[in-house]
Amino acid sequence: MTPEQLEELLLKIQQGETSIESGIERLSRLPFEDIGIAQLDHHRSLRQGAPEVVFGEGKTSAQLQAILTAMARSGANILITRLDIDKGTALHNQFPAGEFDADAGTFCLVQQPIVARGGKVLIVCAGTSDLPVAREAAVTAKMLGNPVEELVDVGVAGIHRLLAKGDTLREAAVIIVIAGMEGALPSVIGGLVSVPVIAVPTSVGYGAAFGGLAALLGMLNSCASGVTVVNIDNGFGAAFAANRINRCGQA
Amino acid sequence: MTPEQLEELLLKIQQGETSIESGIERLSRLPFEDIGIAQLDHHRSLRQGAPEVVFGEGKTSAQLQAILTAMARSGANILITRLDIDKGTALHNQFPAGEFDADAGTFCLVQQPIVARGGKVLIVCAGTSDLPVAREAAVTAKMLGNPVEELVDVGVAGIHRLLAKGDTLREAAVIIVIAGMEGALPSVIGGLVSVPVIAVPTSVGYGAAFGGLAALLGMLNSCASGVTVVNIDNGFGAAFAANRINRCGQA
Amino acid sequence: MTPEQLEELLLKIQQGETSIESGIERLSRLPFEDIGIAQLDHHRSLRQGAPEVVFGEGKTSAQLQAILTAMARSGANILITRLDIDKGTALHNQFPAGEFDADAGTFCLVQQPIVARGGKVLIVCAGTSDLPVAREAAVTAKMLGNPVEELVDVGVAGIHRLLAKGDTLREAAVIIVIAGMEGALPSVIGGLVSVPVIAVPTSVGYGAAFGGLAALLGMLNSCASGVTVVNIDNGFGAAFAANRINRCGQA
Amino acid sequence: MTPEQLEELLLKIQQGETSIESGIERLSRLPFEDIGIAQLDHHRSLRQGAPEVVFGEGKTSAQLQAILTAMARSGANILITRLDIDKGTALHNQFPAGEFDADAGTFCLVQQPIVARGGKVLIVCAGTSDLPVAREAAVTAKMLGNPVEELVDVGVAGIHRLLAKGDTLREAAVIIVIAGMEGALPSVIGGLVSVPVIAVPTSVGYGAAFGGLAALLGMLNSCASGVTVVNIDNGFGAAFAANRINRCGQA
Amino acid sequence: MTPEQLEELLLKIQQGETSIESGIERLSRLPFEDIGIAQLDHHRSLRQGAPEVVFGEGKTSAQLQAILTAMARSGANILITRLDIDKGTALHNQFPAGEFDADAGTFCLVQQPIVARGGKVLIVCAGTSDLPVAREAAVTAKMLGNPVEELVDVGVAGIHRLLAKGDTLREAAVIIVIAGMEGALPSVIGGLVSVPVIAVPTSVGYGAAFGGLAALLGMLNSCASGVTVVNIDNGFGAAFAANRINRCGQA
Amino acid sequence: MTPEQLEELLLKIQQGETSIESGIERLSRLPFEDIGIAQLDHHRSLRQGAPEVVFGEGKTSAQLQAILTAMARSGANILITRLDIDKGTALHNQFPAGEFDADAGTFCLVQQPIVARGGKVLIVCAGTSDLPVAREAAVTAKMLGNPVEELVDVGVAGIHRLLAKGDTLREAAVIIVIAGMEGALPSVIGGLVSVPVIAVPTSVGYGAAFGGLAALLGMLNSCASGVTVVNIDNGFGAAFAANRINRCGQA
Amino acid sequence: MTPEQLEELLLKIQQGETSIESGIERLSRLPFEDIGIAQLDHHRSLRQGAPEVVFGEGKTSAQLQAILTAMARSGANILITRLDIDKGTALHNQFPAGEFDADAGTFCLVQQPIVARGGKVLIVCAGTSDLPVAREAAVTAKMLGNPVEELVDVGVAGIHRLLAKGDTLREAAVIIVIAGMEGALPSVIGGLVSVPVIAVPTSVGYGAAFGGLAALLGMLNSCASGVTVVNIDNGFGAAFAANRINRCGQA
Amino acid sequence: MTPEQLEELLLKIQQGETSIESGIERLSRLPFEDIGIAQLDHHRSLRQGAPEVVFGEGKTSAQLQAILTAMARSGANILITRLDIDKGTALHNQFPAGEFDADAGTFCLVQQPIVARGGKVLIVCAGTSDLPVAREAAVTAKMLGNPVEELVDVGVAGIHRLLAKGDTLREAAVIIVIAGMEGALPSVIGGLVSVPVIAVPTSVGYGAAFGGLAALLGMLNSCASGVTVVNIDNGFGAAFAANRINRCGQA
Repeated sequence: MTPEQLEELLLKIQQGETSIESGIERLSRLPFEDIGIAQLDHHRSLRQGAPEVVFGEGKTSAQLQAILTAMARSGANILITRLDIDKGTALHNQFPAGEFDADAGTFCLVQQPIVARGGKVLIVCAGTSDLPVAREAAVTAKMLGNPVEELVDVGVAGIHRLLAKGDTLREAAVIIVIAGMEGALPSVIGGLVSVPVIAVPTSVGYGAAFGGLAALLGMLNSCASGVTVVNIDNGFGAAFAANRINRCGQA
Repeated sequence: MTPEQLEELLLKIQQGETSIESGIERLSRLPFEDIGIAQLDHHRSLRQGAPEVVFGEGKTSAQLQAILTAMARSGANILITRLDIDKGTALHNQFPAGEFDADAGTFCLVQQPIVARGGKVLIVCAGTSDLPVAREAAVTAKMLGNPVEELVDVGVAGIHRLLAKGDTLREAAVIIVIAGMEGALPSVIGGLVSVPVIAVPTSVGYGAAFGGLAALLGMLNSCASGVTVVNIDNGFGAAFAANRINRCGQA
Repeated sequence: MTPEQLEELLLKIQQGETSIESGIERLSRLPFEDIGIAQLDHHRSLRQGAPEVVFGEGKTSAQLQAILTAMARSGANILITRLDIDKGTALHNQFPAGEFDADAGTFCLVQQPIVARGGKVLIVCAGTSDLPVAREAAVTAKMLGNPVEELVDVGVAGIHRLLAKGDTLREAAVIIVIAGMEGALPSVIGGLVSVPVIAVPTSVGYGAAFGGLAALLGMLNSCASGVTVVNIDNGFGAAFAANRINRCGQA
Repeated sequence: MTPEQLEELLLKIQQGETSIESGIERLSRLPFEDIGIAQLDHHRSLRQGAPEVVFGEGKTSAQLQAILTAMARSGANILITRLDIDKGTALHNQFPAGEFDADAGTFCLVQQPIVARGGKVLIVCAGTSDLPVAREAAVTAKMLGNPVEELVDVGVAGIHRLLAKGDTLREAAVIIVIAGMEGALPSVIGGLVSVPVIAVPTSVGYGAAFGGLAALLGMLNSCASGVTVVNIDNGFGAAFAANRINRCGQA
Repeated sequence: MTPEQLEELLLKIQQGETSIESGIERLSRLPFEDIGIAQLDHHRSLRQGAPEVVFGEGKTSAQLQAILTAMARSGANILITRLDIDKGTALHNQFPAGEFDADAGTFCLVQQPIVARGGKVLIVCAGTSDLPVAREAAVTAKMLGNPVEELVDVGVAGIHRLLAKGDTLREAAVIIVIAGMEGALPSVIGGLVSVPVIAVPTSVGYGAAFGGLAALLGMLNSCASGVTVVNIDNGFGAAFAANRINRCGQA
Repeated sequence: MTPEQLEELLLKIQQGETSIESGIERLSRLPFEDIGIAQLDHHRSLRQGAPEVVFGEGKTSAQLQAILTAMARSGANILITRLDIDKGTALHNQFPAGEFDADAGTFCLVQQPIVARGGKVLIVCAGTSDLPVAREAAVTAKMLGNPVEELVDVGVAGIHRLLAKGDTLREAAVIIVIAGMEGALPSVIGGLVSVPVIAVPTSVGYGAAFGGLAALLGMLNSCASGVTVVNIDNGFGAAFAANRINRCGQA
Repeated sequence: MTPEQLEELLLKIQQGETSIESGIERLSRLPFEDIGIAQLDHHRSLRQGAPEVVFGEGKTSAQLQAILTAMARSGANILITRLDIDKGTALHNQFPAGEFDADAGTFCLVQQPIVARGGKVLIVCAGTSDLPVAREAAVTAKMLGNPVEELVDVGVAGIHRLLAKGDTLREAAVIIVIAGMEGALPSVIGGLVSVPVIAVPTSVGYGAAFGGLAALLGMLNSCASGVTVVNIDNGFGAAFAANRINRCGQA
Repeated sequence: MTPEQLEELLLKIQQGETSIESGIERLSRLPFEDIGIAQLDHHRSLRQGAPEVVFGEGKTSAQLQAILTAMARSGANILITRLDIDKGTALHNQFPAGEFDADAGTFCLVQQPIVARGGKVLIVCAGTSDLPVAREAAVTAKMLGNPVEELVDVGVAGIHRLLAKGDTLREAAVIIVIAGMEGALPSVIGGLVSVPVIAVPTSVGYGAAFGGLAALLGMLNSCASGVTVVNIDNGFGAAFAANRINRCGQA
């Protein structure tokens, strides 16, 4: 129920066209989002130009194509994540206008121009094995309308390579730091900059890495104050959080 | 070595007062922070008005008093966290001008006026047992110069109490959500708002809560996109991260 | 041995048709459930019309077909769970009268009419990925003779979608809530209704979901009083418990 | 906002005493519970005669006494759980009319007569060490208005003691089974009866019992279909769930 | 009900002295232990001379004294385990004839002579810190009537000390090996002898010993075939198992 | 003893200054059991007629065939465990005289007659899914020369099926109890008999069974005194331990 | 920037060819490793003759071949680890001069002679299943220029086989001990020798071995003082550490 | 070699049939290192000047004083670790010549002069809370005769403080790195130096630090090659390992 519909209902009551009983009835039943709490549905129907997001893992090619077909009609931009090469290729064959990024595991269908706004989102990763997660973060941040820069292979065991990138670090508005193994990079970067740092543990590593648990615990226990953490391999979530931060002072 | 000192050294070399050999020697040894990378030491000597922070846990009263005495001379504001009632009272006896908050476990010595800047940091907690963590976050955020509002006892089992606070949620620039037990509150709030949400698991609960592990895992697996997480009971860290976010567009 | 058979045996002894020795022999050997403790065998040979249940996982197609053939002779209804598509198809080819539900992983052979009795069992799930578990619960509850309604995709990050279903929630006699990731949905529903709520954690999620552990811990620590929990992905068990509850006041 | 207040508001709009604009304003802001969703607040203000419940752990004696004083004014029955002997005695000194059960750790103030309704809630526990949890469950179930029977010390290592209680098991409407160590008792009982079985793991045991984890996992993996589980040592939660079940067919 | 009683009952039915109805009634209700399964209660009322066992942990001094008083009347030997020094001393004051072993945490009241039978139970422990567990095992094994020998401080880091005790190892009928830290001793001994080896992990150690978990896992993964394991610190259980083994060929 | 001392001792013997008896005495006491300690290598070269054992998992077919060829020359009996169907078939093709048991995953080459000695080893398992582990135990126990009986599908949820087998339980000298899920069966059996009980947790189950962890913890925390435990799925180890026990009084 | 380049810059400033401003500019920006901290980059560009190391896991054949081609141009020795048979064979086809060790999973391209220096690195492993890890360690140690000896199949259950190798143990400068299952071997060896012992847990084992966790915990809790540990299956890391130790007194 | 064979050999030597040389040869080869293997007991009776070590935790004051009294008679140096202030003071009162270090929890009785030999052992710790572990390591390393230098409070969040200590790092022969929280420091240092690095996780931290588990996992997964790890808080073990390394090239 839109404010206009509510106004119309009250008008009819005022004018006697609708009885008070039926007004009570209708008002008590209306869905909550109808009474002006606009943000309640924000994550489903995003603002003009923002993408619809589909989590691709665990869905079949057929399901994904059906969802994409339905969504595409709205003219919105669409981002599908966690696609393997078979599903991604199938989607691309069906929607040649879309772009499948095999490294990121993402499929993007851009139907409305995306204008990058806000500060730069810098995505740093420790090793080349962390690249898929970094790419997922980069694609997501771009689809959400953020300027993105990537910095790869700057792990803590070769700390000078990171320190040599002082300017790049200083120019970022938000930094996403992606690391597997011991997950120490966010602590070092968190100590070098004063902007928000979002840490993403990856499942890279073996033995006692326990599928990313070591990196996750390391990041949660970061000695650098103010580092926050998302789930293992969750490049999408980190970029989504970075976008929230980047939109912070813009409303 | 300041830029001025560097200029002086090069001048002396140019003028022949210093030999090239001794110039090489001196330049190869100088500490990195001397060559203009100002942010390297930012977390020790913060900008004018920002507090010095001391982690009080595991330090004796004597050590804390010595540290506080030394720091106080600089005229900076000082925040000490994780104090029990004995240590806090002892500090207050020594520095009556400071304020000990027994709930938060913090001691604040304000020697320079703090002007709240930026958007509102909203601190939400699920139950009364989460209050100590919420208080630590609130005190920290205020000491760092942020406007703070607190919202307590709005757990997900009584979801209407939270929904009734729609305006409060909508007015925040950053939201810190603190919850123990199943840690579900950040997911609900993350679905209601579009601003950054920082989740803090608490060690509240018993049995299979495993000292906050259940809440921590719950928050890392939040179905609301873009929720980030800090360590169990780490109200300080959440506030520090909120401050980083709040300063984001202000440089 | 039914009470009727026991009566017959004693009659024959009384009438001298059966010797005391052979009476002792027969009585000492008979399985315990024969001597009137009717509930002892309830989970093997259920009451008239109730299904025989076979756990299909870890059994070969040949074994399953042999079991099904043997059981079918009794004329009982039969429910086989945890079937993959190959095993399910093979069973269906052998018993075309049976129904294989590929989503639920179940095969049902209905040889006696099932009359739905008792209150409605409502099965709620948080996301589309939880559907297989929800389907297993639904098929089981129906085979056990319960009216079933399903409510899908009402996760806590879009809380208004759930709240809009107030009537549906209010009409249920028992609610099974299925969720992966942080497993928060049972807490919210447990706070909205006063009927029994059975929570089923699913292995949906990645990273620190740890195969359903996060959801399991979340549900065990639910802040809504009176929520009970079954094993990860155990839709069958939840439906079996719901049926026990639904039969509660019917004896 | 009660239905009466809503009727009054609409009447005023109909009669022109309130403008449509102010009607829209007021209706969009009203708390959700006001518009007839009565069950939303059920767990705070329970039906006539049902108790207010307070979780006593982590609250000081002073806080508890203040809460109790405030609540007692309403004339409702009150149940406080998780009290140690000091807090319990202090409450009893203040409210001699109340009853402190040191074994259960509960304090009950009965200001309105409790009429036991529904089937019998049977509380079974494996060993004498599980008694405090059993007592908490018993007190809670009684305060919620259920007939309660207790059966103690019937662990699975002496299975005949349990089997000798066949009549008692058969007469129950709901069974709460409490066990530490390997937590096997619910499986055995779940195989003997057809009514709902709620399992409560306890932290009793040592070494690899890991504070109740072994019993919890055992119960979640029960080979008896339809056993549900609550958190470790959560006698209160089990009784609350049993009450939900016992009220199932009574609406 | 003995076979004789069953014969008598059937006779009476044959002779018309007992009606069929009452025969059905009696046969359906008889407790299982009545039909000749004498061993069902063996662990409560042990054979002549075997001790009654009480687990002392979690019981108050008053409860223990009451239990001991009641048990002592039967004239049986009594073993109470897991006593701290206060409880043990109190028991000894009450029953000066009994013996409190402060190291083992046991109290033994010997009212009937114990004759050691069977092969030697050898109890080996790795370090002096494991002694309390070793003592509990030794006292238990003796009370159960086994010859016992102890061998202490023969850890694997000084393997020659163990090897020098070849004769002692060879003379044992059963060996209980107690070790904390990495729990390697049972593997070494299991490779040296061919008799049964029961491993007891202890909670001795720190850091990643995780309260005995490291030793427990080590022992379960022993590379010596045929080593079996009991719970952490469970010296009593190991001795009870050793006694079962020692009685193996004696029936 | 240094080489010099050894030389001196031998010199004295040569010169008659030291008797041969005292030489033997001295030499046998210093170097451990080195001289004449046959059991040191017992698990490699077993007594006449005992099998050589090879762990087949992780070895290639080629490696296994090479090992078997080499071992077979000695004329000893050979037991290979943990074989999949491909490896087992390959071995059988090469050695048609051997027997491959696909359920147990074992290959037995019997070159010397095996005479079953000692008491009966009873192998009990809870469900049909536990059968492979039970079969591995049975084959191993037979190859080691023990009389074996198997009892299957007697889980605790249908306790009467187990109780009906009282005679079988009473006749065993050692009982191996194999169970997955909650692992409760050993506790029940341990309470019914007085002979040694060896518990084997299996990885059967799903969700919070965590690959056998639930059953393992359950068994370690058994409330039946004197139950010992081996590693998850370790049927071989349990049989090896049972054999050690069965040989106990036979030396 | 090499010392030569630094000297040239300062010379130009002295001679007025470069202005002081541009000197400041250039010096403040130069990467840290340029100003004489030679060791900063040591692990990338190793000393003459030391190998470049590439972690092969998670890289495609195409990527590996590209990396190898680029690296080979420098004339350095190259070690690639964690290769499966497909990748290894592909590399060998491209670079026939290189050697692929299928057991170790390594590819070595030796373009400069390797002279073994320092003490002997002894690599001991407990079972044949640990061989791949042992081989990775051996290849790595050799490529780094260490004399290597291997000792296999000397597990603690057959302790005499280890003790018989006393000479071999005594001659080593560093010992790498590799073991799965309970991981006890390093404790025994650590007690026999006084040289550095590096323990490598392997993922060999099943059930409660939990992928090497049991061995890892065992080794961390070694009762032999001074044993250090690397990650599960990390033969490369152990050899790298051994090389660091072996170079200790050689600078 | 059986006693009979031994007798035969000695007889032949006595009779001159076997030469003494061949007797020595034969005897020294069969019984392991038994003859002349001084290092077998090295960790009990260390070389002249090396300390006897006692682990003080879990021993009473009385026990410690008895042990110390007995050991002191030998004139050896003695190191007791893990002492609290009460035990340490009691020992110092009894042996005023000894030194109790309350921070390290150590008591040292130096009865023979200690001459520092070998390269410098550098002990680095991340925060002031790690100091007790660092002190234990320092005291141990000194007692074992190593030159020691300490470097404190150089955590990775202020990386420049560490980098400014380049000279100190470069001069060390072995580096012990002690860190809690995320345990990242060893990775950074391991990347800066080429000497052996031993990492010690500490139990410092809270929440998801899980008593040092986070730091332990971080260090095991270090991205710097060749870092080895000891148990949580095990400063003694790290120093003992460092001493082994430092003695490496000195034999």
